[in-house]
Amino acid sequence: MHGGSIYGTKIRHDFSVNINPMGFPVSLWPKLAFSISKIRNYPDIECGLLIEKIGENFGIASGRIVAGNGATQIIDAAIQSCRDKTALCIVPSFTGYKNLLEKNDFICENICLSREDDFSCNEKILEKIKDRIRESKPGVVIVANPNNPNGKVVPLEILREIDNECLRAGSIFLIDECFIELTDSPQENSYFSSMSTDSKTIILRAFTKTFAIPGIRLGYGICSSDLIANGLKNKIPEWSTNVLAQIAGVHCLKNQGYLNKARKVIFTEKSFLSKELSSAGFKVYGSDGPFILFETDVGFSLYEKLLSRKILIRDCSDYEGLDGKFYRVAVKRHKENKILIKTIREVLKNEQA
Amino acid sequence: MHGGSIYGTKIRHDFSVNINPMGFPVSLWPKLAFSISKIRNYPDIECGLLIEKIGENFGIASGRIVAGNGATQIIDAAIQSCRDKTALCIVPSFTGYKNLLEKNDFICENICLSREDDFSCNEKILEKIKDRIRESKPGVVIVANPNNPNGKVVPLEILREIDNECLRAGSIFLIDECFIELTDSPQENSYFSSMSTDSKTIILRAFTKTFAIPGIRLGYGICSSDLIANGLKNKIPEWSTNVLAQIAGVHCLKNQGYLNKARKVIFTEKSFLSKELSSAGFKVYGSDGPFILFETDVGFSLYEKLLSRKILIRDCSDYEGLDGKFYRVAVKRHKENKILIKTIREVLKNEQA
Repeated sequence: MHGGSIYGTKIRHDFSVNINPMGFPVSLWPKLAFSISKIRNYPDIECGLLIEKIGENFGIASGRIVAGNGATQIIDAAIQSCRDKTALCIVPSFTGYKNLLEKNDFICENICLSREDDFSCNEKILEKIKDRIRESKPGVVIVANPNNPNGKVVPLEILREIDNECLRAGSIFLIDECFIELTDSPQENSYFSSMSTDSKTIILRAFTKTFAIPGIRLGYGICSSDLIANGLKNKIPEWSTNVLAQIAGVHCLKNQGYLNKARKVIFTEKSFLSKELSSAGFKVYGSDGPFILFETDVGFSLYEKLLSRKILIRDCSDYEGLDGKFYRVAVKRHKENKILIKTIREVLKNEQA
Repeated sequence: MHGGSIYGTKIRHDFSVNINPMGFPVSLWPKLAFSISKIRNYPDIECGLLIEKIGENFGIASGRIVAGNGATQIIDAAIQSCRDKTALCIVPSFTGYKNLLEKNDFICENICLSREDDFSCNEKILEKIKDRIRESKPGVVIVANPNNPNGKVVPLEILREIDNECLRAGSIFLIDECFIELTDSPQENSYFSSMSTDSKTIILRAFTKTFAIPGIRLGYGICSSDLIANGLKNKIPEWSTNVLAQIAGVHCLKNQGYLNKARKVIFTEKSFLSKELSSAGFKVYGSDGPFILFETDVGFSLYEKLLSRKILIRDCSDYEGLDGKFYRVAVKRHKENKILIKTIREVLKNEQA
């Protein structure tokens, strides 16, 4: 579990949450402070201005865009709009899918990425995925791009083939791109330009991670057609996206320069962290996202040891296909990353002494 | 439809939304302004502090309380946690129930309150309700107390009998008390003290109306048992209640004095509005809530006429059991109420000229 743990325990450095390490754009502070009086009104039920601005950003009409109370609500709506209560997931991946599928009484089939292939979604896996879609025609197929917890981007050719297979099977294809804007080449990595209006494809995005505002809850879906978007909208309760989230979203979209800067920081710091974690003796998996998966063979819980030093990392033992040897850390700013590495080295030294 | 319409049209006075006419407690402004940095963290997934404070307010343990993204989310969760996709509703009532039931593919049976009995939920209706519960054993029975759009409180004996019948039928009994804190005697009117741990009863409350913060989205349910509460929690997606909503909720709960003041204003102004609407020739229905239902026999749309004068009232023609002759207005502060009455008189004069 990520995100909630800071409320129960005293944490000084939270490496369990993967959000933009630059924090939210500073100009958002006064923008929201001066907008507080707006909470006296119901939110715009259509999220009109926000959706218009997202549309402009992608160069598409508003009809294909659905906003919601965090990416979680968009996933929930996508699941609820399925023809059948069956899903196909690639694992290990974001545990939130499983939670939402269970909440909606879905039967979920998993296809395991292979540790030997660095958990990458490659041609070998593709054949398995296509076979399963053909055979079980699931209500929804969920793929994260980049995948979480390993951070690997899924090649567009692979996504295209899954999309085609979903089209034939009548399955919804949900591509979770919540982290894509924090990869090096968001535009090249995104499936957006490959979307076909015939398919039932939904690309998921979140302001949460991209602009470091998880507290305010804002996510959206880009659908392959108005029809799919309307299906989602029908499943979202009225006034779900709060007033301040809508204002924050419109404001953040203007801050593309800040995103460029953030990507540079993530690139440099990811390389620093990877090198340091490797040199500390861990197996580090390659990541295109703002976080790193690594594997240990130490005989103790690194999670517990760091927690007692007020550092929270993601223990990946609850990920389908992983175990207690796997941890994930967010890429943060240099000062904090150095503290993480220093503390890990201290822990290792103490334990090996 | 209420609430959203202010975004499409230029409205000067919105009488379509029934919220505390005093506006939110002024101290909430600095509280939220100084809390904006908290949006950098995920919300407390358990809403721990907020739920603790609500529990203290009612003198019950936290386990029976569920917080959510507006009352809407609590209703949605209650519906989703039903054994069967069938519902029994009393109409006319809040149109949101129907929307959420449809979203969840429910079959809904309606029992009509009678215009002749001023749409009150009385002994005559009770027998019909009990019969239908016995016969069709619906997944959920929904009653608003006070009812919306007429504002009449439902006598506790009636609620108790419905609750007992629901218990026998295994139905969830959802009592929407979103407006009860804006009635004269919230404690006496509320079903809270009558709740039995054996039943599957949920009392719905909303900060939205009580504290005039519809933009921030905060509602909660008080359940008859931990079991029912857990059923609801399982249906609410993670991190649904945003950080600022949780902070606002905790802050508002401290402002009981402000609520007393608001109730006095509503009492005085409701009496003023009722008298004036009656004297303008409308049939005015008695209300215990912060809004008034009235009926016209004028040959034009009062809604349209007022809208062209930048005043928004609630056209009740989409309420099951009502038609285009019915309108609902919120009770606002004296200055605005006077403007409403003055404008209505002008419209009537113009039309009758």
